[in-house]
Amino acid sequence: MFEQLGLIGCGLMGGSFALALKRAGLVRRIVGYSKSPSTTERARQLGVIDIEAPSALLATSGADLVLLAIPVAATEATLKAIRHLLTPNTLVMDVGSTKRDVVDAARRVLKMDMGGFVPCHPITGREVSGVENADPHLYVGKRVVLTPIERTRTQKLDQATTLWQALGCEVLRMSPEAHDAAFAAVSHLPHLIAFALMNSITGQAHGDSFLSLAGPGFRDFSRIAASDPQMWRDVLLANREELAAQSALFRQALDTFDQLIAAGQADELELLINRASHARASWSAATAGKV
Amino acid sequence: MFEQLGLIGCGLMGGSFALALKRAGLVRRIVGYSKSPSTTERARQLGVIDIEAPSALLATSGADLVLLAIPVAATEATLKAIRHLLTPNTLVMDVGSTKRDVVDAARRVLKMDMGGFVPCHPITGREVSGVENADPHLYVGKRVVLTPIERTRTQKLDQATTLWQALGCEVLRMSPEAHDAAFAAVSHLPHLIAFALMNSITGQAHGDSFLSLAGPGFRDFSRIAASDPQMWRDVLLANREELAAQSALFRQALDTFDQLIAAGQADELELLINRASHARASWSAATAGKV
Repeated sequence: MFEQLGLIGCGLMGGSFALALKRAGLVRRIVGYSKSPSTTERARQLGVIDIEAPSALLATSGADLVLLAIPVAATEATLKAIRHLLTPNTLVMDVGSTKRDVVDAARRVLKMDMGGFVPCHPITGREVSGVENADPHLYVGKRVVLTPIERTRTQKLDQATTLWQALGCEVLRMSPEAHDAAFAAVSHLPHLIAFALMNSITGQAHGDSFLSLAGPGFRDFSRIAASDPQMWRDVLLANREELAAQSALFRQALDTFDQLIAAGQADELELLINRASHARASWSAATAGKV
Repeated sequence: MFEQLGLIGCGLMGGSFALALKRAGLVRRIVGYSKSPSTTERARQLGVIDIEAPSALLATSGADLVLLAIPVAATEATLKAIRHLLTPNTLVMDVGSTKRDVVDAARRVLKMDMGGFVPCHPITGREVSGVENADPHLYVGKRVVLTPIERTRTQKLDQATTLWQALGCEVLRMSPEAHDAAFAAVSHLPHLIAFALMNSITGQAHGDSFLSLAGPGFRDFSRIAASDPQMWRDVLLANREELAAQSALFRQALDTFDQLIAAGQADELELLINRASHARASWSAATAGKV
């Protein structure tokens, strides 16, 4: 049981965490802060937080648990704003989709005191954002990746692990580097591709009429293109090296397809599609229920 | 009411059409043929067809409605195999995802007798294939694009329109050329990208471990990668010119993103993501319930 959650960022991820924590009976009060005062007010009106704080520092005051649920590029400034009120007892976590940049920011700001910071990435989300869409079940049955570093205190890591498990999550641990490499491939690049495809279509003379014909395959494929622009701007920039590497590999794979299609090489083309189809079907079977 | 449906191809699309037609009480008997005798037998065991035919010609014998539900590259050979038993009374339709190649094949084979052939593309599907997944509701509430040419008989076009409407579909009409241009952008390219992304990931040393971390965004984005390899081999080859044009436009859009990311141009990047996000949200609102 935590005495106070200092929630910094009352959007979809932060708001859902607050609701989940309340629902699990794991917190006495939630003091929330968002950059936009109207968001903070809305969060209180919706019962997502109990008390509005006018600054990140005041949300941190008295908190034994602090969650940063903000675009990752805001991590450093936010940690600077709150570090004076962090105690050795405070557990600080984030929910950012990239981890190297977040860990680097924490190193720079917290220095010797970063043992209480546990970097987290819950593998969940929705294509809508905002506190209005906060959902106490957003984390249930999902996986959370923790990326501790050598200075992370074991007690804090265990506390974070227990907390996520109490919310119904499966907890995984890996290095920030391994995390960012993997998510460049399976999350950041797919988002980038979905954004680029939408813009490619709408940039054409008949784009709107093309879109009016799109079906269920397009619906699922392009769903992530509706994701939050600020959040994804930061993620794509923060992980740019790994993303560029994945983008290059993807272009090579696309080149291979384009060449086979241009040359009319039906058998080789079918082999490549078959490989993709099998891989996707195997993935689906292996992750059933977890994703 | 049709006397006999000659179903050529008893897979997901054909099998679902048969079940839908039966359910609507629009056909007395269904004679089915698939290239693989075991599929035809399975279709009869499942009650999708009433009678197994050992050839496409025998499925056509006595049919006043013939549906080609086969990979599009098989259209020409199949029409050749059945043309001797087509009468002026027979309505022939296909369900192929490309239309120019299908219409060209019909022109070559049926020549002056192609007035009874109505090219159709129902905008529906699933990432699983096979008669075992046939679903009488697959077409309900979905759109069907008919691409008649000047020689298509009005009476047959109206008959096809009425038939699809009776199955719960919204019927659209356009030229084969306009159809193929639109679907290159909103269907064929997304499939190609999804295949390429899967192969790009699985071709890497840590690809399997990356995939084990993928979440709900990846799940939706990559769903179409599990599509039927033979069917998609034919679609990508049949529409290769339009697909190449769309692939080039997509690469340009991706280049623009890559350049902004490499240069760290956060504001411009957010603008581009915002444009994509808005376009996807607008599409979703405009097509709600139809897709």
